[in-house]
Amino acid sequence: MTTDPHDLLTARTTEELRRRRSVKWREFPPDVLPMRIAEMDTPLAEPVAEALIAAVGRGDTGYAMAGTLPEAFAGFAARQYGWHPDATAARLVPDVMTGIVEILRIISEPGDRVVVNTPGYPPFFYWIERIGRQVVPSPLAAGPDGHRLDLDRLERDFAAGARAYLLCNPHNPTGLVLTREELEQVAALADRHDVRVVTDEILAPLTYPGHRHIPFPSLDSPAAARSVALVSASKAWNIAGLKAALAVPGAQARADVAAIHEEVSEGAGLFGVLASEAAFTHGGPWLGQLVTALDGNRRLLAARLAEDLPGVGHHPPQAGYVAWLDCRALGWGDDPARVFLRHGGIGLSSGPRFGADGRGFVRLNFATAPERVSEAVRRMAAAREQAGAGA
Amino acid sequence: MTTDPHDLLTARTTEELRRRRSVKWREFPPDVLPMRIAEMDTPLAEPVAEALIAAVGRGDTGYAMAGTLPEAFAGFAARQYGWHPDATAARLVPDVMTGIVEILRIISEPGDRVVVNTPGYPPFFYWIERIGRQVVPSPLAAGPDGHRLDLDRLERDFAAGARAYLLCNPHNPTGLVLTREELEQVAALADRHDVRVVTDEILAPLTYPGHRHIPFPSLDSPAAARSVALVSASKAWNIAGLKAALAVPGAQARADVAAIHEEVSEGAGLFGVLASEAAFTHGGPWLGQLVTALDGNRRLLAARLAEDLPGVGHHPPQAGYVAWLDCRALGWGDDPARVFLRHGGIGLSSGPRFGADGRGFVRLNFATAPERVSEAVRRMAAAREQAGAGA
Repeated sequence: MTTDPHDLLTARTTEELRRRRSVKWREFPPDVLPMRIAEMDTPLAEPVAEALIAAVGRGDTGYAMAGTLPEAFAGFAARQYGWHPDATAARLVPDVMTGIVEILRIISEPGDRVVVNTPGYPPFFYWIERIGRQVVPSPLAAGPDGHRLDLDRLERDFAAGARAYLLCNPHNPTGLVLTREELEQVAALADRHDVRVVTDEILAPLTYPGHRHIPFPSLDSPAAARSVALVSASKAWNIAGLKAALAVPGAQARADVAAIHEEVSEGAGLFGVLASEAAFTHGGPWLGQLVTALDGNRRLLAARLAEDLPGVGHHPPQAGYVAWLDCRALGWGDDPARVFLRHGGIGLSSGPRFGADGRGFVRLNFATAPERVSEAVRRMAAAREQAGAGA
Repeated sequence: MTTDPHDLLTARTTEELRRRRSVKWREFPPDVLPMRIAEMDTPLAEPVAEALIAAVGRGDTGYAMAGTLPEAFAGFAARQYGWHPDATAARLVPDVMTGIVEILRIISEPGDRVVVNTPGYPPFFYWIERIGRQVVPSPLAAGPDGHRLDLDRLERDFAAGARAYLLCNPHNPTGLVLTREELEQVAALADRHDVRVVTDEILAPLTYPGHRHIPFPSLDSPAAARSVALVSASKAWNIAGLKAALAVPGAQARADVAAIHEEVSEGAGLFGVLASEAAFTHGGPWLGQLVTALDGNRRLLAARLAEDLPGVGHHPPQAGYVAWLDCRALGWGDDPARVFLRHGGIGLSSGPRFGADGRGFVRLNFATAPERVSEAVRRMAAAREQAGAGA
């Protein structure tokens, strides 16, 4: 374990990172600074690395089963959120997205409407439509203090006949963490309109000081009891490529989670199970250091943007390590990421992929060394200089 | 590298195997000999273990991409089968089953008929029906020399209006390896009736001496050019839990494979990619030793069954490490696996899960130490003693 939290983000040199085989450092040519896909430039947490090395030694690479992962998550949830989910009711799935799809298949019918806040994680749109459900975009409200949940709009979307609400909390890409009061209002609306709530809580362990993650099924309401949360260690411990997540039901949703077919659970990765279990059980100290380090980058990014790119709108996220940047004032049209790539040599996520209200936005991943965060802003500023307005 | 091939199957003690977290050694209580799920009791091939250890060191656990895995497979296919697939046309998928589902979604419509030989791998039935296609069971012919492809039946099933034929070659659970002549006849039938051929070739590297695997897309025929093969290192190098396979098209099926959505490819496991690449590139010597060791077990099982359980029908597989055992003469009804478990303390696959013509059969995995193969037959014989007829 390192003593300076920032070591987690600086431990790997660029040369080392370029030897990685995952998407982040391979999807762009070497002259591009890669800040698009949501992977972190950290080494693995020691307990996670040890669990994986031990599995290699055992030759333990056969079919995945959940084993004691649900208990490990329940222990983490109790310590982290004061939530005591029933571990025996949780089901293993390969990833949060697959879990969402499975639960939506179980609790809704083809043609049913599923409300999704926009901007929203792009795969939500693809997968919900792929199973024949209709995505109802429910825009977040954008105000001077950043995005917030628009409960009036949500109620109208529920009232129009929604079957389910896919709530991403903490929210990707805005980093919004809903308060207990907001979540209770969501639950009340869901009860009033008979809407099932499915939550993506993948970012929850990465909530910054000053904010608090409330697991939706932990609320005291019928809607919460009928909800299903999808959770994973994949974001907080950077193990998305190992493939494991859990569907965790409220007290009245156990049968729905139990209906997830064993074929789906066997699609998970065994190393994902083992790494996640180690992370939830022994990864707390690493997580604490990581959040401190990311918090430093979060502040650094805000300061550098204010200085070098004051025209870019930015509200620091309350959780997670992506920044959602409003570039509309640059006059670069719907997809500024293309201009930043061409003129700045920086890879960012395209806002329009997050829905219609992502037009003119980019998403930036700042889970890297602080000097790369500064370099990112330098490259963005250089792109603005080169491309000017109306690029 | 061990010098005696049989060391691969005896290197791990029972105590060590019971520490594994994968399904094989965890799904039954400790007094049961687990011979059900298709995992091997081998240690990892050294190149595979080294690739994984290196990835842990790099912290290389982010999102999967194919990278140079297709080239690695193409090199293996050239050396192993004399087949030169176009690596640039292959697409990464999480596993063979997912690849089959994706290709069937692309080349067929809901309601279309998909021919599957029976007995057949149980997940075929679940997944094909889940995407709204209709499974048409086409039984293999059972003769005095074991199962063979029933081309007359296949032609009738094609003529009745099939859109696709899911061909498992080498075949699970019978271990049948189709000859070039048989495959050419299949291709001619498919051309005559405009049926698309999708092949599961996951067992191909495990083909025994005396038989030869012919990749379907390597045939010289329009049906082969329009076919898609699903391939993986997962069976031969025992890495099913790491999640990687490839969809490899014939020359006229590239657009179909290219239509596999990137969301599906990103569902693969990065460690699966890295392990598979190491296996295909450097895993040849290990594979050679493994097949020799499995061949020994295959002969041992046949000898022990002939001696202790002459009433059980058995034809040694031509590929793979499962035996498909005809237990109908025991008089135990449709599902003898239940009787063997209860009275013999041995876990086997239930024949009826493989389709209607699996009634009265069990499947036994012999990829374990030879003494456990003998112990399996002892336990099966003990079950027969205890349960008698009509259990």
